[in-house]
Amino acid sequence: MKKLINDVATVLTESLDGFAAAHADLVTLGAEHKFVRRKVLKPGKVALLSGGGAGHEPLHAGFVGHGMLDAACPGQVFTSPTPDQMMAAADAVDTGAGLLFIVKNYEGDVMNFDMAREMCGRDVATVITDDDVAVENSLYTTGRRGVAGTLVVEKVVGAAAERGADLKTLKALGDRVNKATRSMGVALTSCTVPAAGKPTFDIGPADMEMGVGIHGEPGRRRVPLQSADAIAEEMVAAIAGDLGGKGNALLFVNGFGGTPSMELYLMYEAARKQLTRHGITPVRALVGSYVTSLDMAGCSITVTMFDDEIAQHWDAPVHTAALRWGL
Amino acid sequence: MKKLINDVATVLTESLDGFAAAHADLVTLGAEHKFVRRKVLKPGKVALLSGGGAGHEPLHAGFVGHGMLDAACPGQVFTSPTPDQMMAAADAVDTGAGLLFIVKNYEGDVMNFDMAREMCGRDVATVITDDDVAVENSLYTTGRRGVAGTLVVEKVVGAAAERGADLKTLKALGDRVNKATRSMGVALTSCTVPAAGKPTFDIGPADMEMGVGIHGEPGRRRVPLQSADAIAEEMVAAIAGDLGGKGNALLFVNGFGGTPSMELYLMYEAARKQLTRHGITPVRALVGSYVTSLDMAGCSITVTMFDDEIAQHWDAPVHTAALRWGL
Repeated sequence: MKKLINDVATVLTESLDGFAAAHADLVTLGAEHKFVRRKVLKPGKVALLSGGGAGHEPLHAGFVGHGMLDAACPGQVFTSPTPDQMMAAADAVDTGAGLLFIVKNYEGDVMNFDMAREMCGRDVATVITDDDVAVENSLYTTGRRGVAGTLVVEKVVGAAAERGADLKTLKALGDRVNKATRSMGVALTSCTVPAAGKPTFDIGPADMEMGVGIHGEPGRRRVPLQSADAIAEEMVAAIAGDLGGKGNALLFVNGFGGTPSMELYLMYEAARKQLTRHGITPVRALVGSYVTSLDMAGCSITVTMFDDEIAQHWDAPVHTAALRWGL
Repeated sequence: MKKLINDVATVLTESLDGFAAAHADLVTLGAEHKFVRRKVLKPGKVALLSGGGAGHEPLHAGFVGHGMLDAACPGQVFTSPTPDQMMAAADAVDTGAGLLFIVKNYEGDVMNFDMAREMCGRDVATVITDDDVAVENSLYTTGRRGVAGTLVVEKVVGAAAERGADLKTLKALGDRVNKATRSMGVALTSCTVPAAGKPTFDIGPADMEMGVGIHGEPGRRRVPLQSADAIAEEMVAAIAGDLGGKGNALLFVNGFGGTPSMELYLMYEAARKQLTRHGITPVRALVGSYVTSLDMAGCSITVTMFDDEIAQHWDAPVHTAALRWGL
């Protein structure tokens, strides 16, 4: 295992210390590294709280700030955070307007956020994201997995919360954005969890895993590596077929951590052409490594169908460590 | 070779097409993919022009926009762009106030930008960046290599140009920022140039290349992989020793393309602690993969000593594909 680390036991806490130091203008780290929160809260605003296993950075802590999340709870690598983390975060960021939990659809995360909701004695709603069209049930899920589309839900709902929408409205909006969003991924290499010290899965030197999950879970099938155009064709067909409509959309090409920008933009071009063939016009673009799987090489494609409301919230100002515009 | 590409011959042009499509609000692609330029020019402003071999994305095209570059000329992977590219870019962005070329110190780049300067019949000054403290002469250089510190020069000089500084002032400022900036890198794996189809260098499964260049050039030595703290200690000592001063600084931890955010923030924390021991206080941070070496795993550390002028220009608004704040 080749990683820039000191000790597998302290990867998460040292990385969080670095994150909090680098972005001290934006965020504060909770006691015992339980959560990352906005430095300055906005009283009367519904607080948005997310979290999940580490290893997907910048998701979620990189999206804490104006126009997105109020707090994020990081678990150990690929492990759900615990209810006491969410309760501590809720205590820190709830200004009385209630809390919206945004949770990726994995059994551990859903269970722990549910427990926190029951135990925290606050007004809480939950949006569960399940945008991955690759498979129905998976290693850690009942139903579809929540993957890179979670970023879109956090951005859109975050903008609406900033403008003063109430909890019920935000919950409905979050569910609507999730339904308008589909993703699919492909892996060229496995990721390596620090504590495991070896690749999560074996993959041949000329193979790819089509439909991979963001923890290296199996996808649809293992096949020889294809061209970028062929990969984009299959992924966009699965996404567009599942969305079932035409119109304007956000096209988001997401790197898994080990794939450089040059390839991601090439994939964007390949996906853009395919999407147009399905009658979907990409009117906004996002290209970069935002929802990663440690050092896995590969990428995912996410499409969110836009209506005026979703587009307006997507374009609204955001000021976080990993997404920043309009401010 | 595992890459998300179609054909090794068209990697660059397809990636540029994707880049231009994704950022059509910011940039325009020149004919025959010769350059990427700002969509809207600012008449009367000195035009900043950079470029170099592809494979270092987002450098340089990702830094075209308000507050940074006016144009960037991409060569083939790890190959200098040609004088006709620079001349076409100069024609496209010179509004009469002159041009500043920002060139990384590699023999091919320096020669080609020099030829373009002589041939274009315009008022041109050149800033050459050579911030890499690892080695003196290298595979493609006389003198030190220009690496991630180039981003800092482009940002600071770009801000001054936006505020109306003249060519002579910008040239002097660029040279001053370059002198205030030092970098050093470490590789855990080789990069793979698409046209070569195999890793640029062999490296053992437990080794690292200390002082590596951004094309995979040899560094100071090949040694067993060390802890993040030990790596940061050596790199920061080399940087701080060469800078030879104390004070406030920018600390920039740059990923080479195959290293995820989680490790980069851990390295930031390690470097931050070391820097403080040398009497240098990081007052600004940048953490991410900005000056890459295709898919190489590893990172570099860059330190720029800040005075009020440099700090002010660093903080000034920037709106490019890869760096964006204050707008």
